Amino acid sequence: MNRRMVFHTVGLIVLLEALLFLFPAAVALIYREKCLGAFLISIAIAAVFGGGLSFFSKPKSRVIYAKEGFAITSLAWLFLSAIGAFPFFLSRQIPSYVDAFFETVSGFTTTGASILPRVEDLERGLLFWRSFTHWIGGMGVLVFLMAFLPGLSDRTIHIIRAEMPGPTVGKLLPRVRDTAKILYLIYIVMTAAEVVLLCFGGMSIFDSLVYAFGTAGTGGFGIYSDSAASLSPYCQWVIAIFLFFFGINFNLYYLILIGRIRSCLRSTELRVYAAMVALGTVFLCFNLSSLYQNVEELLRHSFFQVITIITTAGFSTADFALWPVFSQTVLVFLMFTGACAGSTAGGIKISRVVLFFQNCHAEFRHMLHPRSVNVLQMDGKKVDKETRMGVSVYLSVYVLVFFLTWILIAPNGFDFVTTFTAVAACFNNVGPGLGAVGPFGGFAGFSDFSKIVLSFSMLLGRLEIWPILLTLSPRAWMSKHHKKSI
Amino acid sequence: MNRRMVFHTVGLIVLLEALLFLFPAAVALIYREKCLGAFLISIAIAAVFGGGLSFFSKPKSRVIYAKEGFAITSLAWLFLSAIGAFPFFLSRQIPSYVDAFFETVSGFTTTGASILPRVEDLERGLLFWRSFTHWIGGMGVLVFLMAFLPGLSDRTIHIIRAEMPGPTVGKLLPRVRDTAKILYLIYIVMTAAEVVLLCFGGMSIFDSLVYAFGTAGTGGFGIYSDSAASLSPYCQWVIAIFLFFFGINFNLYYLILIGRIRSCLRSTELRVYAAMVALGTVFLCFNLSSLYQNVEELLRHSFFQVITIITTAGFSTADFALWPVFSQTVLVFLMFTGACAGSTAGGIKISRVVLFFQNCHAEFRHMLHPRSVNVLQMDGKKVDKETRMGVSVYLSVYVLVFFLTWILIAPNGFDFVTTFTAVAACFNNVGPGLGAVGPFGGFAGFSDFSKIVLSFSMLLGRLEIWPILLTLSPRAWMSKHHKKSI
Repeated sequence: MNRRMVFHTVGLIVLLEALLFLFPAAVALIYREKCLGAFLISIAIAAVFGGGLSFFSKPKSRVIYAKEGFAITSLAWLFLSAIGAFPFFLSRQIPSYVDAFFETVSGFTTTGASILPRVEDLERGLLFWRSFTHWIGGMGVLVFLMAFLPGLSDRTIHIIRAEMPGPTVGKLLPRVRDTAKILYLIYIVMTAAEVVLLCFGGMSIFDSLVYAFGTAGTGGFGIYSDSAASLSPYCQWVIAIFLFFFGINFNLYYLILIGRIRSCLRSTELRVYAAMVALGTVFLCFNLSSLYQNVEELLRHSFFQVITIITTAGFSTADFALWPVFSQTVLVFLMFTGACAGSTAGGIKISRVVLFFQNCHAEFRHMLHPRSVNVLQMDGKKVDKETRMGVSVYLSVYVLVFFLTWILIAPNGFDFVTTFTAVAACFNNVGPGLGAVGPFGGFAGFSDFSKIVLSFSMLLGRLEIWPILLTLSPRAWMSKHHKKSI
Repeated sequence: MNRRMVFHTVGLIVLLEALLFLFPAAVALIYREKCLGAFLISIAIAAVFGGGLSFFSKPKSRVIYAKEGFAITSLAWLFLSAIGAFPFFLSRQIPSYVDAFFETVSGFTTTGASILPRVEDLERGLLFWRSFTHWIGGMGVLVFLMAFLPGLSDRTIHIIRAEMPGPTVGKLLPRVRDTAKILYLIYIVMTAAEVVLLCFGGMSIFDSLVYAFGTAGTGGFGIYSDSAASLSPYCQWVIAIFLFFFGINFNLYYLILIGRIRSCLRSTELRVYAAMVALGTVFLCFNLSSLYQNVEELLRHSFFQVITIITTAGFSTADFALWPVFSQTVLVFLMFTGACAGSTAGGIKISRVVLFFQNCHAEFRHMLHPRSVNVLQMDGKKVDKETRMGVSVYLSVYVLVFFLTWILIAPNGFDFVTTFTAVAACFNNVGPGLGAVGPFGGFAGFSDFSKIVLSFSMLLGRLEIWPILLTLSPRAWMSKHHKKSI
């Protein structure tokens, strides 16, 4: 392991966080809020710690292999969250550090689970920072660093691979940096478009920014206790439609940009995603038709809840914890699938689910005709055995981690539905679950230990398990000679 | 699908059941019990139905492919259970047919879960039949048919593959029939040895037979409400040690028979199995040391419960539903792993668990060194990609079926521990769980619908999912042209 390079890059990330703190600090300054002091102290801490770390561990070699990529990503996300919690804690608006850490991890991982009983009590600078973490975490902070910081080698595909969700990560352009830049530009333009459309609907600029951050990162932190229920129908529609777009693989937008619209529309994952959203909405409409007389209202609430759960954002326009069991079952199912790989959404990702069912079918055929050769295809390309194996193993490990988390938080004594959906909502980066952790409930009732466990499960979900597992393995740190194969 | 051959073979199995009914009928005759009449009627039904089915669907071609093997196995097990339930139902000793079906499926699948509140109320003929189903189901009724019925083609490896548990099934001898014969002979000799040893400990011949059947099939039906708790320490030790031996892959006994003891001892699965039993016993001894003052007693109860759960027999010498949570957690973990492939035990099987962890490790290495080639080995042989993929897909499907069963029986309104362990105990063919379905409890409180769901989950567990899924697929039945590849 090239430890110096690992710590050096993590130091750079923390330095970057010091810069990112400037935005909420500016908000606090504009509104003349007390939390400004907390932000200034946090900037100082991040600058000293990050600067020191990157300065004192100047690497001899800048080479990064997959191992280093995993370690950088895990540690960067951990430090970002640990330091990102300081403004909440130092301003005493979240008095417990564990609570502040939970809230910050929930922000960066775009989960949107909250321990705050009344979010309106927070100052605007802190509200801005809370939602801004969604936006940073959505596309990935390391992707940002790769895109705009000079001097990092082109081996950084390993870092992007560790940070970007999905079973495979393709380079759009030969140079990793250019790929990262394109992705971030698409992200920025789409976010800006949503801000404009929300302002157009009568929202203040502050509110528009906050809700656009939550949508873009598919995070789900709001600034009202009732999430998105009190927003105007127009704004709810805007948010819902943008959620749909942020749930699509960003590579497809690049295909559109270079004019290959047809191959974009042929994407299996996109089609399954659209079909699932449509089907889920129809199911909910039928099941909820007695609750809402107005057709627009029925369609809006159904579509909004389906899209907010499948993209794992977790906004809500209605308290679905009180909905009929059938609708809840549909939503819990969508919590697990998540949206497309390469989007800002969490969950297992639709391409993995599709590959899983293709694998099952192939296995079935293999059992019937042991000597026949099964070739899986997706979007006209052959799926290699390594990817198929990767998906199967990922799902098994996913289930193991899920059960382990469950067992660890079970002693809190909540009912079955609450405990199960709390794990599902955190691990899949959704945010709200059902029961006590429903959309108008929260995670305040869990013990400190459980909050830490759930924080780690959010990180495991966002970084897709392997990077964190590797960073916890002493053997990866001990090995000095890295193999010459990339 | 060669439907005629499928129905013909199923008919033969039902005819065989008519013969098997003669044993409990003889017991009923000896003890002059009323249930004799029920057995005679059942024999008539089985003979007429089985004879008719096999006679009227005389196959034009006797060729069996994997598809036919799956269908024969699933249907045979279903009919065996449906008709095997008649003696309980007709004698009115289990007045509900659904209950009788549940009890019989539980017998054949060697689960040992019971709906009887007081097993002592049953007549001896029925008690004998109940335990005899364990013995028949343990090694597999189709394996028996293959071994001793002339005229079935040597393609019947497909049937054995569908009925024998584990990720791979090897032919010990070139001819399938000889393999089946060897396996059954080992099974009979070991069962006989246990009967002799139990009689030696002062048990009556009837009791010895019943407990030997339950041990050999790793089923777990007893003839006292307190399972094995009232047996003498000597008999408990005999049962525990034989359970250990019946949990070993029977192929290893063949290796011992032909003098290759060393390669038997080198078996990875055997070593992991022995280590898990030893470790589990040590854990329980530490955790229970305050409950039992006597060292022999402590060791006996710990070892007995570990071995009875890991082999998925489900006998019990103590009510572990009242034990400390740590011990219960260890036992629940062992419920899932099960013992060795190719034994009479249920669960996931240790070789699958080992392959799963090897897969995870290989995936890990693949992520670190994407271009390196990972070759998995087990017992010195290379594990091919197909087997690795099969294990991963099996585990994913296993989890899916588990969740589905859980959701279907959740409305019974039992507490979390009861519902969860009820599914685990049935699907893994263990028998007792925790809570209301603990070793001294039972499944009587579930609804009829849930009992049918759980019956199917026992069959899915025993036949390892795929055969049943295939039989439920209309496409497999429709296709007329079977591919020429075996």
